[in-house]
Amino acid sequence: MNLDLMRELSVSTDSKIVLLVLDGLGGLPMEPGGKTELEAAETPNLDLLAASSDLGLSLPVGAGISPGSGPGHLALFGYNPLEYPVGRGVLSALGVGFELESSDLAARINFATIDDSGKISDRRAGRIPSEKGEELVDLLNEKIDLDGVEVSILHEKEYRAVVIFRTDGLSGSLADTDPQRTGLEPLSVKPTDDSKEAESSAEIANEFIKQANEILKDEHPANTVLLRGFDTHPGLPSFDEAYKLRAAAIASYPMYKGLARLAKMDLLQEGEGISGEFDTLEQSWNNHDFFFVHVKPTDAAGEDGDFERKAKVIEEVDALIPRLLELAPDALAITGDHATPARMKSHSFHGVPFLLHSEYTLPTAESFGERTCAGGSLGVFPGEEIMGLLMGHALKLNRYGA
Amino acid sequence: MNLDLMRELSVSTDSKIVLLVLDGLGGLPMEPGGKTELEAAETPNLDLLAASSDLGLSLPVGAGISPGSGPGHLALFGYNPLEYPVGRGVLSALGVGFELESSDLAARINFATIDDSGKISDRRAGRIPSEKGEELVDLLNEKIDLDGVEVSILHEKEYRAVVIFRTDGLSGSLADTDPQRTGLEPLSVKPTDDSKEAESSAEIANEFIKQANEILKDEHPANTVLLRGFDTHPGLPSFDEAYKLRAAAIASYPMYKGLARLAKMDLLQEGEGISGEFDTLEQSWNNHDFFFVHVKPTDAAGEDGDFERKAKVIEEVDALIPRLLELAPDALAITGDHATPARMKSHSFHGVPFLLHSEYTLPTAESFGERTCAGGSLGVFPGEEIMGLLMGHALKLNRYGA
Repeated sequence: MNLDLMRELSVSTDSKIVLLVLDGLGGLPMEPGGKTELEAAETPNLDLLAASSDLGLSLPVGAGISPGSGPGHLALFGYNPLEYPVGRGVLSALGVGFELESSDLAARINFATIDDSGKISDRRAGRIPSEKGEELVDLLNEKIDLDGVEVSILHEKEYRAVVIFRTDGLSGSLADTDPQRTGLEPLSVKPTDDSKEAESSAEIANEFIKQANEILKDEHPANTVLLRGFDTHPGLPSFDEAYKLRAAAIASYPMYKGLARLAKMDLLQEGEGISGEFDTLEQSWNNHDFFFVHVKPTDAAGEDGDFERKAKVIEEVDALIPRLLELAPDALAITGDHATPARMKSHSFHGVPFLLHSEYTLPTAESFGERTCAGGSLGVFPGEEIMGLLMGHALKLNRYGA
Repeated sequence: MNLDLMRELSVSTDSKIVLLVLDGLGGLPMEPGGKTELEAAETPNLDLLAASSDLGLSLPVGAGISPGSGPGHLALFGYNPLEYPVGRGVLSALGVGFELESSDLAARINFATIDDSGKISDRRAGRIPSEKGEELVDLLNEKIDLDGVEVSILHEKEYRAVVIFRTDGLSGSLADTDPQRTGLEPLSVKPTDDSKEAESSAEIANEFIKQANEILKDEHPANTVLLRGFDTHPGLPSFDEAYKLRAAAIASYPMYKGLARLAKMDLLQEGEGISGEFDTLEQSWNNHDFFFVHVKPTDAAGEDGDFERKAKVIEEVDALIPRLLELAPDALAITGDHATPARMKSHSFHGVPFLLHSEYTLPTAESFGERTCAGGSLGVFPGEEIMGLLMGHALKLNRYGA
């Protein structure tokens, strides 16, 4: 989709859009001839809805490509995931709930071990426990002092953390310091382009590493840091700019809140569990005209290879659909950010079932499943077109051309 | 598909991919209400395979565009045919089995007749027989002598031949010398851009024409040459670079061997007929992880307007499918490079039936035909996405983004 076109054609109206994302919704049969998770789940409400909806299969990134959560959601929000890559550092920052600003540079930290000769002997510092990792992060936050640069270090898990540098003129065009093998010295941070910004960002990162090494020198085994996945805020146009939408996000995991914040959606305080998210939706209904509602447990069940549990989560959502319909959104999409078939225990490249309900649909089937979607009136289409479809069905787009 | 993305995400694994191409597979009913060649053929093995495969219709170049063999195969190999145009000269060189190198410049030759005033009186030299054409080609090969340039002239058929110039710094940015009408003098070769390479290439080609005219001046009716379709090697990234695949081609016609060679596939010595190609596949199974197998007679039958014969060729392939499945490829695609409906006696713009078998499919039909493909889970999609699909299904692509 062309964001410029959205910017040009979109109009602010009273109509309301809901984008309900069941993370990793797409699935596969566990054995030949079988049903997918969505097909197997008992979903009377979704099936009834499908019978008055447009159906299709969306491809978040491209044919054969398994999307990460970042690219999957960017596509859902209408941003081409190849045009707006989101680096590891930024995703880590979002994942721990850090409020990334547009001038921030983020990088993933691994605590590691160097020997007396300065060579890496363990790239993960013996997988130190999370308590130790937290302690080291506190130590670094207390002692690191970079002139004119605000530094935030946040712990992720075990030997993993994330650092965010905040000052003007930073660049993410920096190479990793992890040489990917033991027995080598850590690399210094080098710019990957000729810009002044990359040069000064490399200096800042190298000074950070120098100070961290000094602070950690008597620690064992975590006596150094390796930095990778340098990236700045992807600088997405906001939902307001692109679509003239007062957008809100209801999500329980930091990563998805963070992704929504990249698009400058308002974050709503969600209630507990999926039904708690629906509570929030009901309570906030009058204050926004776009709601991104994120349901995580489908993906988690898929990653665990638990077909039954994934189907049960879908059934749990199905039972809540009448509450959603009670709100009478003008355009409602129900889909996933990617497929996570229990069969594969991972994100996959398969088309993602997509349902769009509005007053203006061309229904083709009586149930919501991968295969009814495959034959739907929307066909197989790029995920980044979803926002255009929703805007169109909510009558929020002017005609293109006279 | 984005080749850079393939380069970034692809990993070398033990899994094996087969791309079985039935040239011109796509077809049409001979009369309203009828079946296509593929639908009419008795194909119990393909139908059984379809029932556990993903189906779709691929568009090699674009809607309404009938692809030549070059663009059709480039799309199958994942190269955008509009981004990598393959000129007439290069296709002619490939078609006669010439081993084109990256520094080569090729052009199509037509033997023609000029009158005493130097004007063209017959652009095809009275369609001289092939024996005469061969004789003239031998004469030119013997006598042409260009300083520092290796010149190879190969006969195609009747009045048609191809010339390949080999030296450093050649360019294909040269205009045809055929004025397209009789009564005009042949044009001299002119560069179509300002590069030094085009200028010196034009000089070389003009010197070639000058010498050819001298050598042929007493011949009748073929006393001159017209050159057209100047082109250099398209410089495709190799399959190894793009996909990290050890790729092999099994094809019986020079053109398809040549196209595979452009992608730097290994050419395997094929046995006789279609079953001979399958013999080769079995014998070479352990040495490669990608096999392009090309079956020509479907296209030839389509071009002849012979619906029955085309269906019979499809049935012949169908009977060999169990041997292919015995090899248990991890991802298997069966498709064409374009449609050649017997009804049209030519390549056509129609979607090409596409079947992809792997462990990770969403089957939608019990038979392999244009119309079951139209409703398949892959939809109607650009042919250049086929390689991405195969790579994804063979689990040879890393996740995109975290």
